Amino acid sequence: MAANSPAEPLETVLRGTGGDVVIGHGRRFCLIGERINPTGRRIFQEQLRAGDLSAIERDVLAQVEGGADVLDVNMGVPLTDEADLLARAIQLVQSLTDKPICIDSSVIEALEAGLSVYQGRALVNSVTAEDDRLAAILPLVKKYGAAIIALPNDHDEIPMEADKRLDLTAKIVRVATEEYGIAQADIVIDPLAMPIGADTSTSLVTWDTMRRIREEFGVNMTCGASNTSFGMPDRHTLGAAWLPMAMTAGLTSAIMDTRTPQIVEAVKAADVFLDHDEWGMAWIAAHRAKAAATA
Amino acid sequence: MAANSPAEPLETVLRGTGGDVVIGHGRRFCLIGERINPTGRRIFQEQLRAGDLSAIERDVLAQVEGGADVLDVNMGVPLTDEADLLARAIQLVQSLTDKPICIDSSVIEALEAGLSVYQGRALVNSVTAEDDRLAAILPLVKKYGAAIIALPNDHDEIPMEADKRLDLTAKIVRVATEEYGIAQADIVIDPLAMPIGADTSTSLVTWDTMRRIREEFGVNMTCGASNTSFGMPDRHTLGAAWLPMAMTAGLTSAIMDTRTPQIVEAVKAADVFLDHDEWGMAWIAAHRAKAAATA
Repeated sequence: MAANSPAEPLETVLRGTGGDVVIGHGRRFCLIGERINPTGRRIFQEQLRAGDLSAIERDVLAQVEGGADVLDVNMGVPLTDEADLLARAIQLVQSLTDKPICIDSSVIEALEAGLSVYQGRALVNSVTAEDDRLAAILPLVKKYGAAIIALPNDHDEIPMEADKRLDLTAKIVRVATEEYGIAQADIVIDPLAMPIGADTSTSLVTWDTMRRIREEFGVNMTCGASNTSFGMPDRHTLGAAWLPMAMTAGLTSAIMDTRTPQIVEAVKAADVFLDHDEWGMAWIAAHRAKAAATA
Repeated sequence: MAANSPAEPLETVLRGTGGDVVIGHGRRFCLIGERINPTGRRIFQEQLRAGDLSAIERDVLAQVEGGADVLDVNMGVPLTDEADLLARAIQLVQSLTDKPICIDSSVIEALEAGLSVYQGRALVNSVTAEDDRLAAILPLVKKYGAAIIALPNDHDEIPMEADKRLDLTAKIVRVATEEYGIAQADIVIDPLAMPIGADTSTSLVTWDTMRRIREEFGVNMTCGASNTSFGMPDRHTLGAAWLPMAMTAGLTSAIMDTRTPQIVEAVKAADVFLDHDEWGMAWIAAHRAKAAATA
């Protein structure tokens, strides 16, 4: 990589039982539906603990109807066999939709169980820059031919400076490509979007990090977009502004609740202005479909 | 100006009969209400032609209630004495609000008539890079101690390349400061936002122009934001995405219809993430006021 010329923009190819979903800097933004996740959902947790996965069907339909291109599936319920639960959930989700899945767990055994039953090319969520996590997760990513979301943080501490996030991104890219033979295109960096309520300059740091990651590595990026408005009123309006701003800085994907039309439509509008929606055809088609549905 | 260090960000101070309104790169976005303008409003045109300015009162109130920091006043009705009409309109608007006014005309005599009755420090809308326009308008701006919106186009042709827009911006800045002694801080460049429907890469060019203008000249910028969505469906949603994106590129003001809450709120949300709304206090206060009004 030359120091002064930007890195070639890379494309990350995911696959479900339908066609490919490609994340890329010249393409329409990739929406990863976050809802199939028991965090903060007490009833869903109890259902999962009792082995009842029926609520997943509704969540899958709602996320896909809302515009999800990929579905994040997390089964992190305390005091359960997460590996078994995640494997079953992935099989269920793949019976309901042909969209690719983002297999989401902090438990290595659960990631492996999920990957072993997954049909297609998954995105794994996630690894950090810590040596033991890289050593545990990257061999699985390579073995199953998956792509990986990587967070540039270390020792459970989130660096607040763009420089440090860039250093850790460089470490992740080096280890993944050189030590494990994973293609750079299959590394999706999460540049760490933090709540604006805790630090009012946090988005400026995140966008600077994004611009530099795109320029230096060309990799795709994703993030948990709703974090940014945590603790603030009118969160949907904040999210609908934040994502288009982040997209100008190079964000190519987000993990988000696609049931919020205001945020989904903001992303689609940004796609038009970024020239990622050729002649606005998708925008115009969506408008016509909405008009027809309400006529 | 050193070639490699960004120009110092400048502040443009406007004044009505109330306090100052300051446009600046480290400040909350400046909303210039565009509605007091007969273009495309047949009934309003007929009223103005008959000397009836009563509709202005409603427009002033609606723009200010919607959040306008400055009011654009345009009285361009064919077959009228525009100078007389504009002077009367400005006096009327100043009797209704203490906000600063953006005096908007392509007729030199009308600009002078407006400036001569205006109380405070006006923004003049606008001059181009054409020699005869610069020579006619800049002396008025200097004489009345106003600020000026300048469009980097020449011979009635809008350049589609950022380089050409930068060249014309440099010309305007040089002529205004060196030949007429106008402070660089009092030049507000309109980087020319064009409809996305006519050219799908037009916003990318405009944002690139903005980033370079901020970096090279440090001046403030404004634009007619609604142009960008001309001819497309769901224009408010497009506008609500475009402005936050433009704000990340350095846009500090826009001429817009402040009666559209979706767009105004998108701008206020972007202010929060750009760290221009300290601790989100204005955002939170607006939310509380809205909640109280609907309770």
